[in-house]
Amino acid sequence: MNYDLKNLPERTTKPRQYGFTMAMDKGLSIREAEDFVSMCADHVDIVKLGWATSFVTPRLKDKLKVFKEAGLPTYFGGTLFEAFVIRDQFDDYRRLLDKFDMSFAEVSDGSIDLDHDKKCDYIAKLSEQVTVLSEVGSKDADKIIPPYMWIDLMQKELDAGAWKVIGEAREGGNVGLFRSTGEVRSGLVQEILTKIPFEKIIWEAPQKAQQVWFIKLLGANVNLGNIAPEEVIPLETIRLGLRGDTFLHFLGIEKKNTNTAPPFEID
Amino acid sequence: MNYDLKNLPERTTKPRQYGFTMAMDKGLSIREAEDFVSMCADHVDIVKLGWATSFVTPRLKDKLKVFKEAGLPTYFGGTLFEAFVIRDQFDDYRRLLDKFDMSFAEVSDGSIDLDHDKKCDYIAKLSEQVTVLSEVGSKDADKIIPPYMWIDLMQKELDAGAWKVIGEAREGGNVGLFRSTGEVRSGLVQEILTKIPFEKIIWEAPQKAQQVWFIKLLGANVNLGNIAPEEVIPLETIRLGLRGDTFLHFLGIEKKNTNTAPPFEID
Amino acid sequence: MNYDLKNLPERTTKPRQYGFTMAMDKGLSIREAEDFVSMCADHVDIVKLGWATSFVTPRLKDKLKVFKEAGLPTYFGGTLFEAFVIRDQFDDYRRLLDKFDMSFAEVSDGSIDLDHDKKCDYIAKLSEQVTVLSEVGSKDADKIIPPYMWIDLMQKELDAGAWKVIGEAREGGNVGLFRSTGEVRSGLVQEILTKIPFEKIIWEAPQKAQQVWFIKLLGANVNLGNIAPEEVIPLETIRLGLRGDTFLHFLGIEKKNTNTAPPFEID
Repeated sequence: MNYDLKNLPERTTKPRQYGFTMAMDKGLSIREAEDFVSMCADHVDIVKLGWATSFVTPRLKDKLKVFKEAGLPTYFGGTLFEAFVIRDQFDDYRRLLDKFDMSFAEVSDGSIDLDHDKKCDYIAKLSEQVTVLSEVGSKDADKIIPPYMWIDLMQKELDAGAWKVIGEAREGGNVGLFRSTGEVRSGLVQEILTKIPFEKIIWEAPQKAQQVWFIKLLGANVNLGNIAPEEVIPLETIRLGLRGDTFLHFLGIEKKNTNTAPPFEID
Repeated sequence: MNYDLKNLPERTTKPRQYGFTMAMDKGLSIREAEDFVSMCADHVDIVKLGWATSFVTPRLKDKLKVFKEAGLPTYFGGTLFEAFVIRDQFDDYRRLLDKFDMSFAEVSDGSIDLDHDKKCDYIAKLSEQVTVLSEVGSKDADKIIPPYMWIDLMQKELDAGAWKVIGEAREGGNVGLFRSTGEVRSGLVQEILTKIPFEKIIWEAPQKAQQVWFIKLLGANVNLGNIAPEEVIPLETIRLGLRGDTFLHFLGIEKKNTNTAPPFEID
Repeated sequence: MNYDLKNLPERTTKPRQYGFTMAMDKGLSIREAEDFVSMCADHVDIVKLGWATSFVTPRLKDKLKVFKEAGLPTYFGGTLFEAFVIRDQFDDYRRLLDKFDMSFAEVSDGSIDLDHDKKCDYIAKLSEQVTVLSEVGSKDADKIIPPYMWIDLMQKELDAGAWKVIGEAREGGNVGLFRSTGEVRSGLVQEILTKIPFEKIIWEAPQKAQQVWFIKLLGANVNLGNIAPEEVIPLETIRLGLRGDTFLHFLGIEKKNTNTAPPFEID
């Protein structure tokens, strides 16, 4: 940090198990990826190449190399997994992960109907090959999943081998965890956290108001995802109480809410 | 493409007569233009320097060179044409096109009142010098043009020598083809297509929901314009059914709707 | 400029006392900062490193150097000043300005409650060290300040030594001068201008509609702030009547409203 400020919330440092930021690249050029890591490598923990953008990305290997050399793991968005599965090309998908030397993969069912036992099978199989993130929640705004069901799905996917589970929100932040207006389904989040460990969940929160909401509820070290590259620095200031939105929050109640221990234990 | 996926909609390849993407540059630096072409040259067919941004752009010739060397034609936005015409400087405008070695130009009347015969005269004159794109529709949200009139204007401009006609939407996507909310005037679009050939129209569709709407109605190879540089890769995935929004659409009815032939013939 | 167009509104040139553009950097990389100055150095007068982003910015000195070499002064956002003051670290803040060789600073009370005499003391003290911009208006959407109060606060801060005063709007443009919808509180602006000199105020106006509103009311050479880097070129065209939004405005009434003299004199 460039100067000393007293009484800041304590942030976890890399490698982080929580306090984790997942950024979404939806088409950065090689040089833009270099620019991104030059600013954000310390503040980001993993980079998702959004949905199936990797399919139409030139010089994909060179781009992956930029992130790798900066110590940032990457993975292909879950929609790519689904695009292979719906075409009965799961084995091709596994070969693809090898070809690009990926160490992470996402398993999701945001666009397709996938029997949940079958989804857990995919998680289990891929877990032998890579570290798996699995995503719960539909991209379809009309598909409302009740809280007990979110909990059940998340727990089963963790049991099947997922390293962390992701709460779906899309790039726009208007489905899954959020109402179509972008408002957080707060009862849902709180109920999930009575059962699933805090550090095991990455909340997709692309909009600033959503990031602020999660940070106020769960502290500086909540795991957040789908962060646009240019929003990583702003997010880091929100986590630290150094932007208007959380400035007073962390000063007022910082000793109560922003300890580095996760606020919820595994039950 | 970086890997094989079965049953993708067939995309036209360059040089494209349809399936065309027009990107809008509203102030990229030289290096950002280089970054853009490094990622998007295969996915973009033409670049518009938005409205009169060229007036205040440093090193304009160097920027044009970047696009030219990547095989991307460029043109100045129609507002620049209008700025010259309203000042009685049309001859200066023609010299300007020569000075910057432009091979395309846009003729529009989005901000000024221009007698339509006079507009067609400009199209005819400029057609002797460059390839002309002409634009139909007002930038004024209160000016509603009925469908038969859109058709009449488009046909006359094509007859006068326009290579393609553009349906106006502005950078914001909230006028012309769209209601102020950004919603597509769908009856208008469908009525236009009963008379004007599919491949002759470029639809300005800067917002994702608009792109999705056109692609679902008209297939992967609809001509779309006013695409922000960072949205070119995402748009390409939408065209291919590789983003949530069109994922199921292309799987379900792909053999019926996404043939490479344009869905509407010249009448 | 790249070509001649008649009857454009006259723009002030650098160093500008009015017609001033303040851009906001919220996390540009070194190379992005270089790109920015390569396009915008002539069109921007000062760069703000938004709120406390400087705290988490790697290679901060290198970034400041890029702006300095382009002749662009920079300053740290007012939230950083507040972060030091609320922690009783004002002396550390003064040392920080020296350490980074800053010649400008912002004094604000957007996030904290600060007695106004005390705020004026800070302005007076910092004025001995640097050029001070002071900001009036709360970041809190519920805190409505009546016009006579804005005038009183602005006048006292100018008297205390502020070089210019800033009307608060945040990055989002939805508080202070603006209603939560982004609509301008127009009566407020007009009343302020009956007492405070035009050239002494920088209006934060991050949204295009807000920029257009101020330019239509106060002419091409109004001082505007919180402009995103990629909106500097577009803003310059709006000032010149070369974008649809102000195209007719400047043609129709240009001789009456866009003289280079500020429209309001110091009373």
